[in-house]
Amino acid sequence: MSLNSFGHLFRVTTWGESHGPALGATVDGCPPGIEIDAGAIQHWLDRRKPGQSRFTTQRREPDAVQILSGVFEGRTTGTPVQLMIENTDQRSRDYSDIMDKFRPGHADITYWQKYGIRDYRGGGRSSARETAARVAAGGLARAALARLAPGLTIRGYMVQVGPHRIDRARFDAGQIEQNPFWCPDAQAAADWTGYLDGLRKSGNSVGAVVELVASGAPAGLGAPVYGKLDTDLAAAMMSINAVKGVEIGEGMSAAALTGEDNADEIFMGNDGTPVYSSNHAGGILGGISTGQDIVVRFAVKPTSSILRPRRTITKSGEATEIITRGRHDPCVGIRAVPVGEAMMACILLDHLLLHRGQIGDAGGRIG
Amino acid sequence: MSLNSFGHLFRVTTWGESHGPALGATVDGCPPGIEIDAGAIQHWLDRRKPGQSRFTTQRREPDAVQILSGVFEGRTTGTPVQLMIENTDQRSRDYSDIMDKFRPGHADITYWQKYGIRDYRGGGRSSARETAARVAAGGLARAALARLAPGLTIRGYMVQVGPHRIDRARFDAGQIEQNPFWCPDAQAAADWTGYLDGLRKSGNSVGAVVELVASGAPAGLGAPVYGKLDTDLAAAMMSINAVKGVEIGEGMSAAALTGEDNADEIFMGNDGTPVYSSNHAGGILGGISTGQDIVVRFAVKPTSSILRPRRTITKSGEATEIITRGRHDPCVGIRAVPVGEAMMACILLDHLLLHRGQIGDAGGRIG
Amino acid sequence: MSLNSFGHLFRVTTWGESHGPALGATVDGCPPGIEIDAGAIQHWLDRRKPGQSRFTTQRREPDAVQILSGVFEGRTTGTPVQLMIENTDQRSRDYSDIMDKFRPGHADITYWQKYGIRDYRGGGRSSARETAARVAAGGLARAALARLAPGLTIRGYMVQVGPHRIDRARFDAGQIEQNPFWCPDAQAAADWTGYLDGLRKSGNSVGAVVELVASGAPAGLGAPVYGKLDTDLAAAMMSINAVKGVEIGEGMSAAALTGEDNADEIFMGNDGTPVYSSNHAGGILGGISTGQDIVVRFAVKPTSSILRPRRTITKSGEATEIITRGRHDPCVGIRAVPVGEAMMACILLDHLLLHRGQIGDAGGRIG
Amino acid sequence: MSLNSFGHLFRVTTWGESHGPALGATVDGCPPGIEIDAGAIQHWLDRRKPGQSRFTTQRREPDAVQILSGVFEGRTTGTPVQLMIENTDQRSRDYSDIMDKFRPGHADITYWQKYGIRDYRGGGRSSARETAARVAAGGLARAALARLAPGLTIRGYMVQVGPHRIDRARFDAGQIEQNPFWCPDAQAAADWTGYLDGLRKSGNSVGAVVELVASGAPAGLGAPVYGKLDTDLAAAMMSINAVKGVEIGEGMSAAALTGEDNADEIFMGNDGTPVYSSNHAGGILGGISTGQDIVVRFAVKPTSSILRPRRTITKSGEATEIITRGRHDPCVGIRAVPVGEAMMACILLDHLLLHRGQIGDAGGRIG
Repeated sequence: MSLNSFGHLFRVTTWGESHGPALGATVDGCPPGIEIDAGAIQHWLDRRKPGQSRFTTQRREPDAVQILSGVFEGRTTGTPVQLMIENTDQRSRDYSDIMDKFRPGHADITYWQKYGIRDYRGGGRSSARETAARVAAGGLARAALARLAPGLTIRGYMVQVGPHRIDRARFDAGQIEQNPFWCPDAQAAADWTGYLDGLRKSGNSVGAVVELVASGAPAGLGAPVYGKLDTDLAAAMMSINAVKGVEIGEGMSAAALTGEDNADEIFMGNDGTPVYSSNHAGGILGGISTGQDIVVRFAVKPTSSILRPRRTITKSGEATEIITRGRHDPCVGIRAVPVGEAMMACILLDHLLLHRGQIGDAGGRIG
Repeated sequence: MSLNSFGHLFRVTTWGESHGPALGATVDGCPPGIEIDAGAIQHWLDRRKPGQSRFTTQRREPDAVQILSGVFEGRTTGTPVQLMIENTDQRSRDYSDIMDKFRPGHADITYWQKYGIRDYRGGGRSSARETAARVAAGGLARAALARLAPGLTIRGYMVQVGPHRIDRARFDAGQIEQNPFWCPDAQAAADWTGYLDGLRKSGNSVGAVVELVASGAPAGLGAPVYGKLDTDLAAAMMSINAVKGVEIGEGMSAAALTGEDNADEIFMGNDGTPVYSSNHAGGILGGISTGQDIVVRFAVKPTSSILRPRRTITKSGEATEIITRGRHDPCVGIRAVPVGEAMMACILLDHLLLHRGQIGDAGGRIG
Repeated sequence: MSLNSFGHLFRVTTWGESHGPALGATVDGCPPGIEIDAGAIQHWLDRRKPGQSRFTTQRREPDAVQILSGVFEGRTTGTPVQLMIENTDQRSRDYSDIMDKFRPGHADITYWQKYGIRDYRGGGRSSARETAARVAAGGLARAALARLAPGLTIRGYMVQVGPHRIDRARFDAGQIEQNPFWCPDAQAAADWTGYLDGLRKSGNSVGAVVELVASGAPAGLGAPVYGKLDTDLAAAMMSINAVKGVEIGEGMSAAALTGEDNADEIFMGNDGTPVYSSNHAGGILGGISTGQDIVVRFAVKPTSSILRPRRTITKSGEATEIITRGRHDPCVGIRAVPVGEAMMACILLDHLLLHRGQIGDAGGRIG
Repeated sequence: MSLNSFGHLFRVTTWGESHGPALGATVDGCPPGIEIDAGAIQHWLDRRKPGQSRFTTQRREPDAVQILSGVFEGRTTGTPVQLMIENTDQRSRDYSDIMDKFRPGHADITYWQKYGIRDYRGGGRSSARETAARVAAGGLARAALARLAPGLTIRGYMVQVGPHRIDRARFDAGQIEQNPFWCPDAQAAADWTGYLDGLRKSGNSVGAVVELVASGAPAGLGAPVYGKLDTDLAAAMMSINAVKGVEIGEGMSAAALTGEDNADEIFMGNDGTPVYSSNHAGGILGGISTGQDIVVRFAVKPTSSILRPRRTITKSGEATEIITRGRHDPCVGIRAVPVGEAMMACILLDHLLLHRGQIGDAGGRIG
């Protein structure tokens, strides 16, 4: 069972543990002829790299990606692309204390209960390090999208840290790259700085909400009923470590709307394609893209690796307390932004390929 | 591509349109020897059946399920089970007006853009009628779970209608079957009655939030990283018509919690299995069940088929207005309760089979 | 697990037992806009129908196919197509004797050992009747191929019955429809008539070899390494009841050739595409079609349901003898011809869709 | 699309080209707790390694496997196992001549037609080097089988080289490891030596037939109808480079048998399990194992890389001749023996896991 894979035609399998020799992504189904090199993928990995501010883990790794297969003379060949990242800064010694204890809120206990063995060093497979492989695969997906869907852009940013949300009225896309939070609201970014400094000093952590917007995606991507674009996006985001909720468009708030308010009215645009009065749908109707912005949000829980003592048990069932020392993130949601972007890129490319295969040019025109 | 299928080992493919001759579910991978007959499945379909109160569509169909294969002398044989429901109350005449118009907020326009053809009668494949097939498959899954995981129960109920939420302090499971909303709060149910009557009379509709709880599931179901139990549950719920958000445990609210508050502390229970101080995790850590209650919520948007005029366009691109006459639900979220339960039953059975296959008895013990 | 399914993008799941109410094929992934009706599919089913000569089972069923979904106003909609055939001539009484005995060479014993339950009436799921569902799905695939690959033709015929092979020097495609064996060699057909009459009268059966040729398939279908066109064709043919061997092009005889003899030399044709001096490869190199005829052969073992007594055991382990009375085929290979054609149609359509999705127009030109 | 993957629960994806930095296998779904280290896998790779006699390519590579993930403290953890082999002896210069020419009988031309780009160095993805990754995965599968099916053994050997077959009357399993051909007939091995020396000196090549036997596999592995054990075995063998035919048990010869002769009569054995008078079925009935030896044969065509000039065309369509210099195998079938064994190990483990998941202990007993 490909339980470590996702995607239908653009199929990504990630492998590797936090403290093993290496980790990576095996990507099957990338179209041939896509221009790519390690540098282009490295660009996206560098955005995710830890240690870029005091708000993310101080683990320092170059996260240098190597392309081991599937690329010849600078272009993909249509065969599997192996993207490998060696682990270099492993410091196993930090983790000896948690070898026999289960961190509350962490996969320690369930891995043990399921498998009867776990690589306790740094969380093993459940480590946030696994997401580096996703970002590498996303870099490849972006290169393919640049060729196959030239106008499509994907942008992620944070809209909430702990209880503090951005003010949508102050939304400024230009701010996203100007602060360590990918925050589109300069004032919120300033507020978060103080808030997170306080948390960090107290050895605590906090959750966050990330929003992703894909603009310029063609209408028609997706499929009823279990291969819906939103179904695949929801699964992709929920698969990211620590994610506990996923929303499309209006999301959970759709429950509070009436049908009259929720309906995005339709008009003909000047360019002969439909335009809408609003986007409660988040760009997806019946599982298929409308051509509007595709809007996804997901909530990331606070990391369970904190300096505050919590009560727990050992493998032998004895009551104890645990404090997780080490180099952890006060807000893992920050590093989830490039991960979410990468997942979205992979899913959109996948559905673009599916659409080409099954529909060809059979889609309907309006007007 | 099995875009109309879900599940790994217990694999369900639904087929059929709202106004075709029949619809159903092809279920591959049901374990052999499970006692089942049409009556046992009918029990669950009857719960979902429309027309049971004035708050759901007045379309009246017996929704009588037939088992066409895979069952011999009252037990499953391990071969595919075909569950068919004939469509009997189709009244195609109701839909002539929408043949060339796109309902705002409905899959009309995206189906057209994708496929260049759509069965406009009753929404075709995008109709809520498709969910009858899911409920049938869920009935089969429940029968298998009753055998393979005897203590496991699945219960769904509504926690929000429009802006009105239940009061958790008044939660009473005994109330769930006592009102047409599967509402565990008697006071909320009374309030919703008046609220929905008003909406219905004004030809409007509203959204809702459904909560599902599985109790008694064993620890160890699920898998990292893309085959997580929560990943599959999120996809399953998002695949239901009109769902726009999915939450596990604390859900979107996890963003506002600190690591200290979110960590469910662990203790040894009297029966030698771990117990937890709380269940922010919703019963899933690292994609794998903890043995606690598995808690999922999803938001259903209001139906777009309303009597209030909305602006839209025709297939030829002309501006127009649309009112959807017919027999529609003021709150489709109500009928989503048994659908959500059915999806949860299918996903849990699927992961139970996966666990048996890949782990056998290799899981770890505590104490 | 979709163990009753095949295909990647054009995905066929068959369901149903020999003596249940019905059987059929759930086809997911058929492109939209394909003109089809039940009559067009019935055409292919009629070719496979038993009872057309004294050399096939005398079971008489109309095998009337119904299209229950996925087709609207005479064209596919892109949603699942449900093809159902009701069982009408079941005569369960014929099978009471084999309820507790295992027929040597039949799936009776392995179904029992695996599932602990089996529908013993007519072989249940292992009956040749299952192949009717394949032929129905193949009819749909042919309709899609007619639109998407207009010049492609698929032709099946018998090349061996028992020890008697056709003489390739007498090969005449015009003969194929002129005898009850789809035999391209008139002399062989005459010889087989007498041979099979003798077998039939003695209550015995015999095996056969079927050959399939697809002409006009474009170059480029298939993929390395496990999604090879020949890999999928081999699996498709081996999945047919009673098939014990599959060959592509030269097949098992390739073992006896030298590299010099086996290499099909390449030239430029007048129309600017490559032509070959020979076709030892059977139209497939490296898992990908060359544009030459695609040639597949498969061997069908003799049916185990014979009137000759064979020693066997009962479910309780007692030694006994068995004679299978009933309406069986002296040479089941005859009815395998349209089944093989149908499987080939499904596989070729599937790879055509895969090629469109993943390659688009990126393929290389020569000259 | 996982076109470079095989297996349902034990899922293997191979990646890498002949002359890239590395190649390997990403194995998802290996059960946890299996004792394994690189040395145990290396054992199987060493059997396949080229250059061990003058009858296989003189390319000399250590083929040293590294385990990059999924193993912790000497045991599998249930997470993906990455098996990597670096390419060390690449000599790209040997291949400059074939950059623009297509070798007759080789994937050169179809890769170009499909992808519009190909890694011409050493055949790229179509190189026999890809099979090293299969052997590594097979080594892991063998370790898991040793734990989960202790009595099961898998043995491969050659039964035909060019036109020269072994004499079954001289079959001696003890001979298999005594000659460079894995030949169970000492006399045949001696004959083949002279025959292949002649071919090698003349720059020619020849095909072969390999036979595989799995003994001690439990009854009940496999499934109707498309997930048959023989279906998966046929696909697995056909996916090996240069294979053109696959047989189960009697194989193509089943065509010539009568039902009376082909039926393997059934008796009760002394140990309370069924025994059979013969094994025409090759250990599989209705797609499910009987408990007898599972017997598979496949034919390998002669390599197209020969020193004999063949007529062909260039990428620009010009007529030319080609001779393939380099280090090639006079009989690639020899190295296919450990590859076939590895594929069989993977498929049997996969079906063992499937059986555990879907059947548990529901299978039927006899007696």
